Amino acid sequence: MTKHPDTTPEDHTSHEVRLQDALQRGVLDGDRAGVSAMLEGMHPADASDLLEQLSSDAFEAAVELLGDALPSDVLIELRDEYREDAVEALPDEAVVEVLDELDSDDATAVLEDLDATRRERILEELEPADRAALEAHLVHDEDTAGRLMQREFLAAPEFWTVGHTIDHARENAADLPDDFYEVYVVDPKNHALGYVLLSQLLRVARDTRLADIMEAFHSDISVEMDQEEVAYQFQKYSLASAPVKDAEGRLVGMITVDDMVHVIQEENTEDLLALSNVSSADGSDTVWESVRARAPWLSINLVTAFIASGIIALFESTLDQIVQLAILMPVVAALAGNAGSQGLAVTVRAIAEREMDGNAQRRALIREALTGIVHGVLFAVGVGLVSLLWFRDGPLALVLGAAMFASFVWAGIAGIAVPLALRKAGADPAVASSVFVLTLTDIIAFFSFLGLATLVLL
Amino acid sequence: MTKHPDTTPEDHTSHEVRLQDALQRGVLDGDRAGVSAMLEGMHPADASDLLEQLSSDAFEAAVELLGDALPSDVLIELRDEYREDAVEALPDEAVVEVLDELDSDDATAVLEDLDATRRERILEELEPADRAALEAHLVHDEDTAGRLMQREFLAAPEFWTVGHTIDHARENAADLPDDFYEVYVVDPKNHALGYVLLSQLLRVARDTRLADIMEAFHSDISVEMDQEEVAYQFQKYSLASAPVKDAEGRLVGMITVDDMVHVIQEENTEDLLALSNVSSADGSDTVWESVRARAPWLSINLVTAFIASGIIALFESTLDQIVQLAILMPVVAALAGNAGSQGLAVTVRAIAEREMDGNAQRRALIREALTGIVHGVLFAVGVGLVSLLWFRDGPLALVLGAAMFASFVWAGIAGIAVPLALRKAGADPAVASSVFVLTLTDIIAFFSFLGLATLVLL
Repeated sequence: MTKHPDTTPEDHTSHEVRLQDALQRGVLDGDRAGVSAMLEGMHPADASDLLEQLSSDAFEAAVELLGDALPSDVLIELRDEYREDAVEALPDEAVVEVLDELDSDDATAVLEDLDATRRERILEELEPADRAALEAHLVHDEDTAGRLMQREFLAAPEFWTVGHTIDHARENAADLPDDFYEVYVVDPKNHALGYVLLSQLLRVARDTRLADIMEAFHSDISVEMDQEEVAYQFQKYSLASAPVKDAEGRLVGMITVDDMVHVIQEENTEDLLALSNVSSADGSDTVWESVRARAPWLSINLVTAFIASGIIALFESTLDQIVQLAILMPVVAALAGNAGSQGLAVTVRAIAEREMDGNAQRRALIREALTGIVHGVLFAVGVGLVSLLWFRDGPLALVLGAAMFASFVWAGIAGIAVPLALRKAGADPAVASSVFVLTLTDIIAFFSFLGLATLVLL
Repeated sequence: MTKHPDTTPEDHTSHEVRLQDALQRGVLDGDRAGVSAMLEGMHPADASDLLEQLSSDAFEAAVELLGDALPSDVLIELRDEYREDAVEALPDEAVVEVLDELDSDDATAVLEDLDATRRERILEELEPADRAALEAHLVHDEDTAGRLMQREFLAAPEFWTVGHTIDHARENAADLPDDFYEVYVVDPKNHALGYVLLSQLLRVARDTRLADIMEAFHSDISVEMDQEEVAYQFQKYSLASAPVKDAEGRLVGMITVDDMVHVIQEENTEDLLALSNVSSADGSDTVWESVRARAPWLSINLVTAFIASGIIALFESTLDQIVQLAILMPVVAALAGNAGSQGLAVTVRAIAEREMDGNAQRRALIREALTGIVHGVLFAVGVGLVSLLWFRDGPLALVLGAAMFASFVWAGIAGIAVPLALRKAGADPAVASSVFVLTLTDIIAFFSFLGLATLVLL
């Protein structure tokens, strides 16, 4: 929770509510100057948050009211869905102006929101050089380093001195990116040789040569690299920014850590939702978007649930004779399903954090199998005892315990084997694995419990 | 996956395996100089990765072999569990040396690994000034800004010029943090007034006054602030670093984005594991650690599963008369449980991304209830039709459909209401909510299906 030394949470909330009301009123009154002044007085991230709090009608009205007075840095801070809606509601001239003002990576994000004809029309309105730069950017696939990078960065030849580099930055201030953390040292063919942190540049004498203080790169990022791998390198080497090279190894762009934080958050969210069988989710989703993101998985689950029912149906006559089996059956399925989900979550996390390579994979498989056995013994005894106290039926308790044991061991193995198999097949280990694991576990649970009951109790 | 333009993934893997073999051999042969040279030739993050690949015995042997030749920047890159083991295996003198070399936030992390007596003993070995600084750090609670910050940063009074600031940095190079991205402008009482990005400092004339180019802070971080809130501010305002102030508003430290990336990853991992009823997980976990992190949740689930069984037992005589109910019962529970998990994951994600405040919460509640109704209609018809085709029993299909509808609506509401209620009660909305949601859903599923069947079919 937010903790402010000088304000209680209530103050904070009521302040926000007042701002929201003021914005809403301004939009309803058509007070263009007032709304624009209000947004410009705030950090772009706060202004975009405030806009997102509006109802979707009021949001659209606000964008239409503002037109080219909607600050481009507010637009780019909006969450994807809102940005798309805003770009749609803006007139062409306003979009052109926005593209002019943004760094190349952000401008590309806006261009992506446009349909092909409108994009073409708007690109024609831009200066030829800007247009060419943006088109070069769009060549790269989405979710690659080429798309995430910006083309603005500071590079210098290795024979430059610190003083020369600083003077150069002063003279070319307008061409530099808004913010950057390091100078790239390049050879005449524009290959990056190393980097000098700005905090390093500051603390050495002006006549120091860049070649003498530059450090070797640890990151190794090319335009076609997937954003997940880029984010991994940022995390691993604690980077604030990193250079991007083209297929010939030439320096063509720079990626900064703020974009990577976004990617890390995105990848984490994807895993969390995928494990719960949701394709995508956002706070602004409509009912229709929610249904579309979830119903397909429920439909698959409908099929798998009836498969599990089919297993139960095999033992219809057993159930007919011993009604206690119907009462206890869900216990086996629920516990084993829970154990399978646990192993699955642990495995998906370990894969995401690259803890599942080589030896580590074998070690984890053994650990999960053994954990399944330990849990199997513990909970076989547990459920066996509870059912013994409840139904006073020794053989039934034994059958329940044995089925519980088998299901736990199976769940332990399925929880790790299914995501690893999906990864091996080139699929996302988080997507679909929970349906697989839970279905397999249900089948084993019902089959072992009812099967054993048929053999032992009848 | 890693994509290297010049090496195939196989090359990459076999290179790693060769390195691992070389390290293992070096450790077994007791080749201190060789192992040490090998690790020092790599980036600390790569060296620590390599050490973590060793079996736990070999890892300990490596640490003991290296002693004070284990580079402190490799030690600090190790994952928590490994770092703890390494610190334990190192002699006191080596730990003292490590503490000397590290920045204050990292040194504190190492100190935390020590038990109280050893920590006291080692603190006594340090220079009094270093000791006082570290003790001041340990005053702050874990997971707060005060613990995460480093005390090294660059601050300057507002009347200084750019030239003066750079000269100052050159003269005091040794006292500056290894890497930093901005200069804090302070008043005589050491209150931070604003900041100047290094990339800004570089591009303006030497005689520019800091007061004229400094920007106002958007972040607002005090020593006692929870790390989750700090990470939120970093994400929201795309920060590379931010100042930390004490209770009197004085500048006392700086937090950098690499630590926040770690926190973001940690918080995400916690949510993902909590939703699957796992307390904690790491690639290096033993079977015992796995059991400890999961068995308590399974035990709770054992109780809740028997509660659901108790509901079924209420309808024993109904089940005795219509065995098809036992066959279809799990379908209702499985589908409704899945729907509940979906809503739960969506809600936990929205809470984590601060999309659940004020109006947004009410909107989300309505959306989830409506989504439950839509899914309820769709899947009531779906399961009804399948069961009709299967059992050719109209009333049974109607009862199944009606129970499915009720369970879906309930699951939709529980999926959002349970985590929101937990948050309101001051608890973590991800922890325990899936046990609650699934149990409630099971109970409603069994009760509505068997209850309706008793009323309609008997």
